[in-house]
Amino acid sequence: MDSTVPSVSAEDIRAAARRIAPYAIRTPLIESSALNARTGGRVLLKAEGFQRTGSFKFRGAYNRICQLKPPVAGRGVVAYSSGNHAQGVAHAAQLMGIPSTIAMPDDTPQIKQRNTHGYGADIVLFDRDRQDRQELAQQLAAERQATVVPPFDDLNIIAGQGTCGLEIAEQAKNRGCEIDALLICHGGGGLAAGISTIVAAESPNTELYGVEPEDFDDLKRSLASGQIEHNEKGTGSICDALLSRQPGDLTFPINKQRLAGAFSVSDDDVREAVRYAFEVLKLVVEPGGAVALAAILTGQLVCEGRTVAATLSGANVDPELFSEIICS
Amino acid sequence: MDSTVPSVSAEDIRAAARRIAPYAIRTPLIESSALNARTGGRVLLKAEGFQRTGSFKFRGAYNRICQLKPPVAGRGVVAYSSGNHAQGVAHAAQLMGIPSTIAMPDDTPQIKQRNTHGYGADIVLFDRDRQDRQELAQQLAAERQATVVPPFDDLNIIAGQGTCGLEIAEQAKNRGCEIDALLICHGGGGLAAGISTIVAAESPNTELYGVEPEDFDDLKRSLASGQIEHNEKGTGSICDALLSRQPGDLTFPINKQRLAGAFSVSDDDVREAVRYAFEVLKLVVEPGGAVALAAILTGQLVCEGRTVAATLSGANVDPELFSEIICS
Repeated sequence: MDSTVPSVSAEDIRAAARRIAPYAIRTPLIESSALNARTGGRVLLKAEGFQRTGSFKFRGAYNRICQLKPPVAGRGVVAYSSGNHAQGVAHAAQLMGIPSTIAMPDDTPQIKQRNTHGYGADIVLFDRDRQDRQELAQQLAAERQATVVPPFDDLNIIAGQGTCGLEIAEQAKNRGCEIDALLICHGGGGLAAGISTIVAAESPNTELYGVEPEDFDDLKRSLASGQIEHNEKGTGSICDALLSRQPGDLTFPINKQRLAGAFSVSDDDVREAVRYAFEVLKLVVEPGGAVALAAILTGQLVCEGRTVAATLSGANVDPELFSEIICS
Repeated sequence: MDSTVPSVSAEDIRAAARRIAPYAIRTPLIESSALNARTGGRVLLKAEGFQRTGSFKFRGAYNRICQLKPPVAGRGVVAYSSGNHAQGVAHAAQLMGIPSTIAMPDDTPQIKQRNTHGYGADIVLFDRDRQDRQELAQQLAAERQATVVPPFDDLNIIAGQGTCGLEIAEQAKNRGCEIDALLICHGGGGLAAGISTIVAAESPNTELYGVEPEDFDDLKRSLASGQIEHNEKGTGSICDALLSRQPGDLTFPINKQRLAGAFSVSDDDVREAVRYAFEVLKLVVEPGGAVALAAILTGQLVCEGRTVAATLSGANVDPELFSEIICS
């Protein structure tokens, strides 16, 4: 790893776990006899839809925001997000009793807009293709003298997301099994960077993979070239949570070192995974949260005879889209 | 309790738990910060949708069927069921390597028919209003020299369902809390009889309640009169899993002694609960499995300042009905 780039340690993630413990849910690691039978392996699913705000994003947001000191904290926080980070930041700010302002793309699912508003945030909508979200956030922060909480490229955010991996490692250990491979949903790479750092420490024999939508395979191409590659498009997949333009400057060096590779799945694969989660697993999973499961169901990751874990990273999906998927 | 009626003991339920342990899932007891905030109490939800076959029914079916001795077992089992018991019996028989025949009402949700068939059962459809299901099952069993596995009025079935209550008691203890009130979905009363027996032993201060659909409130009326009362109708609620004609001859004496009362909820209340489970809890719950949650959300059971548990007893719902509910 390039030692000039700041990074997170396993100890940073353990400290984050202690910090978020009073509020964060220790989400269950779910096993389904039907999925085991289908894959011929043992599959453990980390159900982050049960986390506060319906996705893992609360972990990083709370870990970042709870460390703001009073004079700065009081002026509030600003975030830009397609929805899950928005809710995480808004709810973490609410719990800390400070104001939040969120810039959201105007095509954000209604459920994510409504919930973010419900956590007390001011919402500013922007055009995903025309406006630069980071610039907009900086401008909003300057107006309010508030602190920007980035969605993934921040060491405290990465450490917070890593707590999900710490739980996976502990829960697997508690049921006496070693995870051979772990699949992590990948947008900007915060979850993958956090999980891969702690799992490398706690369970060094586990192979780690990122999973992303097929037209947004910036991670796969970046791992291949060894440098940060970006996606052509910013829209065009049902996986609204994973449409980051490129891996982060902080997340990519970590993921480059820790990940064994990346898989990409089509929207049809994702629909099948969402339908499977409804019909067989009895879980609500949003499209972006279902990519890792999709890589298992399509057989891209061979599970036969192995113990495999995957993140179901979020569950905030509009009922209309969910219905369309499960009824098709 | 009338001592001439055979009953189950807490020890019977502990024995059932040991018997089903190799196959049954220890389902999670889920807590939601949003639901706690809404009710002002602490609410623990036993997510039986994660059980094998998508409902608690596997527990009783396996406990009953695994005790059949070889010559009898080999001739197979017969059950009559609106769908969840059907799947439980079919899958338990499949695991034991013996044949199963299931009589199902012809209005059974497609998902339940398909899954039952998927577990290898022969399905015989009947008209819910015109044919007597018990007679039909006896006839099928006589033809096949098979054993009838009744849906609730059987001591081994009751003991098996009770394992759900044993887990609730243990899981609550593990997180250091005492349950003030526990709500149990009630059709024929097998789940309520099993849970109430073990919870009375493990957590004697917990108040126990049955919950049923409002036009099928045979339990409420039976508790009021002290004797078994039956429902006028056999159809007419979206809670297809709870449309038993009357409490059982074995289940009612137990529930009469153990339950503090019963609540009934309308189909609209149930729809709201299914929608809430989708949107906030991120769980798929079938209508009949959502009645206890509905009694909480409608405020019939006051949760403020108390610790309350409820069974989410099943999750087998057709996508079309689920979509209609979550989109309305």
